[in-house]
Amino acid sequence: MSEPWLISLETETPQAGWELAIKLSRMSVKATQPSDEVRGKLRAAYDQDTAQLIASSQVIATNFQTVAAANGWWR
Amino acid sequence: MSEPWLISLETETPQAGWELAIKLSRMSVKATQPSDEVRGKLRAAYDQDTAQLIASSQVIATNFQTVAAANGWWR
Amino acid sequence: MSEPWLISLETETPQAGWELAIKLSRMSVKATQPSDEVRGKLRAAYDQDTAQLIASSQVIATNFQTVAAANGWWR
Amino acid sequence: MSEPWLISLETETPQAGWELAIKLSRMSVKATQPSDEVRGKLRAAYDQDTAQLIASSQVIATNFQTVAAANGWWR
Amino acid sequence: MSEPWLISLETETPQAGWELAIKLSRMSVKATQPSDEVRGKLRAAYDQDTAQLIASSQVIATNFQTVAAANGWWR
Amino acid sequence: MSEPWLISLETETPQAGWELAIKLSRMSVKATQPSDEVRGKLRAAYDQDTAQLIASSQVIATNFQTVAAANGWWR
Repeated sequence: MSEPWLISLETETPQAGWELAIKLSRMSVKATQPSDEVRGKLRAAYDQDTAQLIASSQVIATNFQTVAAANGWWR
Repeated sequence: MSEPWLISLETETPQAGWELAIKLSRMSVKATQPSDEVRGKLRAAYDQDTAQLIASSQVIATNFQTVAAANGWWR
Repeated sequence: MSEPWLISLETETPQAGWELAIKLSRMSVKATQPSDEVRGKLRAAYDQDTAQLIASSQVIATNFQTVAAANGWWR
Repeated sequence: MSEPWLISLETETPQAGWELAIKLSRMSVKATQPSDEVRGKLRAAYDQDTAQLIASSQVIATNFQTVAAANGWWR
Repeated sequence: MSEPWLISLETETPQAGWELAIKLSRMSVKATQPSDEVRGKLRAAYDQDTAQLIASSQVIATNFQTVAAANGWWR
Repeated sequence: MSEPWLISLETETPQAGWELAIKLSRMSVKATQPSDEVRGKLRAAYDQDTAQLIASSQVIATNFQTVAAANGWWR
């Protein structure tokens, strides 16, 4: 995680903010399990598991709160 | 997810905000599992499972916090 | 969910706000499982399951945060 | 739940606010399972189960956020 | 829980705030399971269980949000 | 945990804030399970378990909310 990937929380549109929230969620999984190979294998298991899909949505929702606040809710 | 679906967090009424929160929750599941077919099959499993219904409600509640704040709580 | 049920987040008292938070929590389950009959059957299962009772309380607590903020915490 | 039990979110001290957060957490379990007898039986099960004790703590922490904000963090 | 243990949410440093968040988390487990003896036995089970360690971290993170806000983020 | 490790919540960049959120998440696991040896063993189990990876991401997301607010969202 040495190369910079998070320069700013500001985005032009709500949708770009939403996509940033998804990126934050994925980067946090990567922080705990850095191996692309292992994550690739694991993905096959969890994207068919609704409990885990919902838990992933919870992480995205939490990160979207942060990004939306950072952008003054794009008002 | 290339076509825009999230133009603004502002809604005319609290209820429209509530419906946006539900949409955000569904779009985040879609972000992790993009296949309509797979999600359709999975749905049959989780909408009879109370633990997962409650977990879904938690995601909606979190997204509703964001939408409500974005609208100044419609005051 | 076509008839309006959420006109405002403002309530006269904290307790009425609490009851609105419970209503929001129930409506979000209904959004995912609209059948009254199915929800009635499911209820018999989860209201004896402490893990699910606690998870339901978490949803209510999250919705109460939103309603309390919307009311300026009734100060 | 017809008799009023939540008149205000304001408390004199942080500790009284903490106790209110616990009360809110218990009242939300009661909202879903109103029977004192059933809750009494269930309690014997979950107060020995660390996963559920931790989940209960999460509900208390969320309600304490609300109560603390309502009191301007007692500053 | 009759003796006062929570006089203020203000701390001199972020780290002292962090330690207060941990204390709040422990006191909320104690609120549900007051017996020191039972908690001591239970601890042996959950401190080797990563799912429960992570759930405990979630409670600490939530309480730290409250304490950090109470201190104006020590800015 | 006697040596100071959390001097400030302020960081120069969003990415440094993100890394602080990860550090907070790890320190909270350490607060509950202080043994480096035990945590090392446990890690081998949970970094292959997607449900736990997602739960860890939730903790990071919650801590990032705190750090981002502390930094005025780096605006």
